[in-house]
Amino acid sequence: MEDYCCHTKHTPRDEKMVKNLKQRLNRIAGQLNGVSKMIDENRYCGDVLIQIAAIENALKEVGYIVLKDHMMTCVSDDIKNNDFSSLEEAIEITKKLK
Amino acid sequence: MEDYCCHTKHTPRDEKMVKNLKQRLNRIAGQLNGVSKMIDENRYCGDVLIQIAAIENALKEVGYIVLKDHMMTCVSDDIKNNDFSSLEEAIEITKKLK
Amino acid sequence: MEDYCCHTKHTPRDEKMVKNLKQRLNRIAGQLNGVSKMIDENRYCGDVLIQIAAIENALKEVGYIVLKDHMMTCVSDDIKNNDFSSLEEAIEITKKLK
Amino acid sequence: MEDYCCHTKHTPRDEKMVKNLKQRLNRIAGQLNGVSKMIDENRYCGDVLIQIAAIENALKEVGYIVLKDHMMTCVSDDIKNNDFSSLEEAIEITKKLK
Repeated sequence: MEDYCCHTKHTPRDEKMVKNLKQRLNRIAGQLNGVSKMIDENRYCGDVLIQIAAIENALKEVGYIVLKDHMMTCVSDDIKNNDFSSLEEAIEITKKLK
Repeated sequence: MEDYCCHTKHTPRDEKMVKNLKQRLNRIAGQLNGVSKMIDENRYCGDVLIQIAAIENALKEVGYIVLKDHMMTCVSDDIKNNDFSSLEEAIEITKKLK
Repeated sequence: MEDYCCHTKHTPRDEKMVKNLKQRLNRIAGQLNGVSKMIDENRYCGDVLIQIAAIENALKEVGYIVLKDHMMTCVSDDIKNNDFSSLEEAIEITKKLK
Repeated sequence: MEDYCCHTKHTPRDEKMVKNLKQRLNRIAGQLNGVSKMIDENRYCGDVLIQIAAIENALKEVGYIVLKDHMMTCVSDDIKNNDFSSLEEAIEITKKLK
């Protein structure tokens, strides 16, 4: 099944990592909600922007956790089979991440 | 009140812009929720990363809408009074935005 | 003359700033040359990449020095005349800077 | 020799790639020189900034060419030997690239 990560082939994604990712995503959702409230309360733009910069950094961290996991599992498995296509794809995606 | 944007001094933030910003923030919250589901469903990491890159871009747009509004109102008012401190602050914050 | 910065209208660009910018650009040119040599000497890719990241940061600094100067002079003058076009343009350019 | 890229272990870096990289670095050096001249000629800040953004993009391209080469050779060789340290290192460096 192409749509699913190679994790499913052997073992599910590491539970600890899934928990870590979901906690981070929840925290980011909370921060986004905070920005929404700040706009409702007509708060100082500078403070809104600092909060947005913080969310961007938190999101970048999530992206790199997923990327690292992908590289250490799916991509590495492919490399061991002399298939470099997923590596090339991962590098192209990385270029698009902040 | 230093904590509040200069908008409050004269007029509240433009309603249209507030609506636009809140719609964007809602959409981003939905996208974040989508990423969370993708992780639950053990979806392909490459697809998760593409989604994260999309959220990063959407968030960057929100940041620049807030920045532009800030520059066109608060910062411009200060500049007209020969006060460049909010401009300097805004540039420092911009450096931190993606 | 549209091609020239508003500095020319009144005074030339601050000499100190020009010197600062040119020193930074020279240093970056030297760093670039260093990367070229590292490639000739078949140096470790990781070290080449760290050097490239350093150049990117140095270039970002130069960009923000020019941006700040632009905002504090040309853009501010226009704002005082209720012309926001150069501010809008500057924000669009900032989005393209790293 | 730790300082040298794994290329030296087997074969030198691909000549074509070295030529490509050096051409790109030369072009960037020329662009930097152009910015220096623009500053001397007191050219419009907006144009200087657009040129700096172009250099940043060109530099990012160079970084990703080196990264991809590194991943396809050194890092992949290590992965095949179940050594993931260079992959982890490469991901950390990627975070620092623009």
